Amino acid sequence: MRALVFDNGLSLQENYPDPQPVAGESVVRVDLAGICGTDLELTRGYMNFRGVPGHEFVGHVVHSDDASLIGRRVAGEINAGCGHCEACKTTAARHCPIRTVLGILGRDGAFAEYLRLPNKNLFAVPDTISNEAAVMIEPLAAAYEIFARTTFARDASIIVLGDGRLGAIVALAFKAKGYQTLIAGHHAKKLDRLAALGIGTADPNDFQRQYDVVVDCTGKSNGFTQALTLVRPCGTIILKSTAAAGATLNLAPIVINEITVTGSRCGRFQPAIAALAAGANGTIDLQPLVDGVYPLSNAPKAFEAAADPLNFKILIRP
Amino acid sequence: MRALVFDNGLSLQENYPDPQPVAGESVVRVDLAGICGTDLELTRGYMNFRGVPGHEFVGHVVHSDDASLIGRRVAGEINAGCGHCEACKTTAARHCPIRTVLGILGRDGAFAEYLRLPNKNLFAVPDTISNEAAVMIEPLAAAYEIFARTTFARDASIIVLGDGRLGAIVALAFKAKGYQTLIAGHHAKKLDRLAALGIGTADPNDFQRQYDVVVDCTGKSNGFTQALTLVRPCGTIILKSTAAAGATLNLAPIVINEITVTGSRCGRFQPAIAALAAGANGTIDLQPLVDGVYPLSNAPKAFEAAADPLNFKILIRP
Repeated sequence: MRALVFDNGLSLQENYPDPQPVAGESVVRVDLAGICGTDLELTRGYMNFRGVPGHEFVGHVVHSDDASLIGRRVAGEINAGCGHCEACKTTAARHCPIRTVLGILGRDGAFAEYLRLPNKNLFAVPDTISNEAAVMIEPLAAAYEIFARTTFARDASIIVLGDGRLGAIVALAFKAKGYQTLIAGHHAKKLDRLAALGIGTADPNDFQRQYDVVVDCTGKSNGFTQALTLVRPCGTIILKSTAAAGATLNLAPIVINEITVTGSRCGRFQPAIAALAAGANGTIDLQPLVDGVYPLSNAPKAFEAAADPLNFKILIRP
Repeated sequence: MRALVFDNGLSLQENYPDPQPVAGESVVRVDLAGICGTDLELTRGYMNFRGVPGHEFVGHVVHSDDASLIGRRVAGEINAGCGHCEACKTTAARHCPIRTVLGILGRDGAFAEYLRLPNKNLFAVPDTISNEAAVMIEPLAAAYEIFARTTFARDASIIVLGDGRLGAIVALAFKAKGYQTLIAGHHAKKLDRLAALGIGTADPNDFQRQYDVVVDCTGKSNGFTQALTLVRPCGTIILKSTAAAGATLNLAPIVINEITVTGSRCGRFQPAIAALAAGANGTIDLQPLVDGVYPLSNAPKAFEAAADPLNFKILIRP
């Protein structure tokens, strides 16, 4: 099959081996795949990944030992665990110590004509969800997981830091859940687009204002420090960014101001699918975030576009 | 009055000015006061405090413009706020930006014959609570606040790091709430005493084991790092220690392992008073933690005993 392969550099291969049938797993023909910040990181050496990247996708099942799946349009949870350990039982495999992760860890991903995932990872996508929106179920699920883990007052004030694709999806998710949501970022063009979708803009340097909830989607090492200055006493910081690694951080304000910090990475698919299923006039619409759809043959150009901070979401059609 | 005064050193003064009546505040004759880790820190320069330290006390109201308070045995919340700001309305004054704090910030404290606090800060102590237990209502309230802010599964596994006075009180509070609670520390003698009170001992270097909830009461800068290694994915770390200040910390594990970190410092008095009111055979008994009661005239000796890591709680009787 045709596949985009990373091995000390991205290359398009025309005869990459097709994924072979395995008991309990399905082969999916990829209809559309999304480029995420993690994919850009992988090409810079993150996770020492070698193989086919890509973990956001929508596709059709072409082979499965579960007959009910064959022919279905599906999205897929990316973590495949052992199925037996405590983490698999309690956290849907995403903390299984011997897990593989689609396009990230030990498992070829979605920038190819076909991929393979465990049957139980696959979720049928309702007809009311376009491919362009369905391809973002994975990051939307990660955003919705915030609501599964934390309870907010109905009138809570929310600020999302970072106007990248993750920040945009998180802000739209908060708005869809009915919260007054502001976003702070450095790209006026993107902030204008989000304003058109009902997201207000905040100045993170306005220290007259504090927020009940600050979501760090900056991807920058100073994001957490900024969040600490913006959160009110007894407020909540949601950390969606792993970029704080190694920074010198003073944790005393967490205790003194009695802050709760919740790290959030992945999420269950059902709430995200339910929210998207209501369609463009319904709960949440992600299609306005799409800034380009590139054929797999033009994947290098797609990665270039995804690295442009003026774009939200770039998709690849295998 | 007689008072212990800190001004670049502790000194006992026989003629320190009595607290004068003020509208909305009461004067309390101190029956018993407790030495806390914060008091030891204050004598090392923390908060640049000058005046009478001491914030854990039980006493009798001798003067008040609220007649119902006069003669009552009371304990007192230590934060006195402006009463009007958002923080006063939502966090019981403890985050009011212009607050005073008994014996810590801009307000003389309990190591004296008399102290003054706002009437609304005072809580009547039921007769079933001994003075030796009532003096620990303040730190117990801080421990009980954990339950107000976080929900745990009934069968959650809990480990408290640090066998100091704070760790001991937190562990006893978790046990009183019905949780299987372990404590880890370096002092066999204290761990044995806690074992006699129903608290198991854990080896924090046993990496085969992870916990749903890790409470950092170490007061050490590496406490948080240790907590990160001990908490399970999607678990909770409660930070009771401000000692992590300035340490180089890698926050990426919080996101990757989806940990929740909650900073906790003070708490409301009612739940702690209710728990103690059940008495020695009831919910929680703190009296076994008392390792010495010193007269105010012997305060330097009391501070010495409080600094001894083999002691839990040292009290001062003015």
